Amino acid sequence: MRVTLLGLGLIGGSIARALRVASEPPDRIVAWTPAGRGPAAALAAGAVDEVAGSLADAVADADLVVLAGPPVACIALLAALGDGLVERMAAGATVTDVASTKGVITRAAAAAAVPFAGGHPMAGREASGFGAGDATLFVDRPWVVTEAVAGGDTDAVQWLAGACRARAVALRADEHDALVAAISHLPLLASVALVESVTSAPDWDLARTLAATGWRDATRLARGDVAMGSDIAATNAPALAARLRAYRDRIDAWLALLEADAGPDMEAITAALADARRRLES
Amino acid sequence: MRVTLLGLGLIGGSIARALRVASEPPDRIVAWTPAGRGPAAALAAGAVDEVAGSLADAVADADLVVLAGPPVACIALLAALGDGLVERMAAGATVTDVASTKGVITRAAAAAAVPFAGGHPMAGREASGFGAGDATLFVDRPWVVTEAVAGGDTDAVQWLAGACRARAVALRADEHDALVAAISHLPLLASVALVESVTSAPDWDLARTLAATGWRDATRLARGDVAMGSDIAATNAPALAARLRAYRDRIDAWLALLEADAGPDMEAITAALADARRRLES
Repeated sequence: MRVTLLGLGLIGGSIARALRVASEPPDRIVAWTPAGRGPAAALAAGAVDEVAGSLADAVADADLVVLAGPPVACIALLAALGDGLVERMAAGATVTDVASTKGVITRAAAAAAVPFAGGHPMAGREASGFGAGDATLFVDRPWVVTEAVAGGDTDAVQWLAGACRARAVALRADEHDALVAAISHLPLLASVALVESVTSAPDWDLARTLAATGWRDATRLARGDVAMGSDIAATNAPALAARLRAYRDRIDAWLALLEADAGPDMEAITAALADARRRLES
Repeated sequence: MRVTLLGLGLIGGSIARALRVASEPPDRIVAWTPAGRGPAAALAAGAVDEVAGSLADAVADADLVVLAGPPVACIALLAALGDGLVERMAAGATVTDVASTKGVITRAAAAAAVPFAGGHPMAGREASGFGAGDATLFVDRPWVVTEAVAGGDTDAVQWLAGACRARAVALRADEHDALVAAISHLPLLASVALVESVTSAPDWDLARTLAATGWRDATRLARGDVAMGSDIAATNAPALAARLRAYRDRIDAWLALLEADAGPDMEAITAALADARRRLES
């Protein structure tokens, strides 16, 4: 079993470390990144066996190729793999990914005739880069496995999830995209819109001097990686727009409660807050 | 100097502890709460000298009375104080509060002829109740001090802030309310609306199984105290509604970016995310 990681940031670096200590580790872990910096640190840390000098060398004889970059990078890599590199992989090889949108990427794999089954480990942390990686990042977390295309094999992705001690969860790519739009991509845009509206008001310079933990919590997602955020918004736009419309409807409902002709509707406000809290806890 | 605390939750309990270890502590700290439970724990912890059996006994001879409850409770207490209890306080006594809205409370004090100058320590934590209190909660945090009415004295509130090692910040009550609407009350409603829209979708039971740290961060404020939240929304409704309208405009702008006829506008999305991040960091 030979695994190739294309990308060694937080997620790729964590996968390398997790495979290294897996109960049935792969025979060989090869890495390649476009920037070329991550692999040297990974070699030094003993997390990978080999740093390939080119994409073609990296995927040669691989049984499992993991695209460990953001969505748009995955799409570019699938095009490159489809352009003559699939033939260099081992017979029956599968390509998978770890990106947070699955539909666009799965369609790109099918179009490029790359044997593919998508994956998405539902784990993360604020820090990024190889140095922030952790062999236990995926332990007991869900790892979504989506449908295979062009001769890919979901079993290979299930194996990867298991080797990282995650719980594999089978979903269709479009189901996955609708769900993460709700629990991950909408919260990101809600946080960004909050920053935009508050920081563009004329009293922001004074307001920021009073900001406490609540502001910090509410804006944490807006402080994340910009390239990752724009990839997510662009590659999951229809599902995200649907969630954003439902969100805007709730904002309008709050405006109606606050601006009621008879004054703010205290009873309805209390009931709404209690209901939201109960839904989170139930 | 005699200080009376009306309320001994997280904030009142932290003030009692902070005054106890202040470089120039008051001669006597008296407490009273409607529920009557907090003071016994506070006595046992040595944080207060006396638990009064009634509101009238609590405020007798007090130089500074601190309303340490949520906004609506403050308004009720001001009415009670105005109904014959101000005369029992020491000559030149001032009443202050720690609530997160100031305009409505200041007007209630003026209407009840209670000598008052509002306060708002900008500090908090997720836990609540006397047991969660901490003598260092306010150290180096802003403590807003608003205009005096009915013969109240802002110096007394400045003294309290200093004794708790906070930084006193003078603001008008209406300025304060507009600022906290932006950095505290709007983030709360944005978080609640997120919970409402996502948990009322038919796929919530599946979505919740995938939720990770981003969802947890974005919904932290919605998990807070319901009574406090509804008090805030109801007593700061006009300022909050103005912020909510500006927020909705940004949500609409994001919908336009995602639903552009030529596909999602990747360049504009990246620029918006980068701009939001820069505004937070600058």
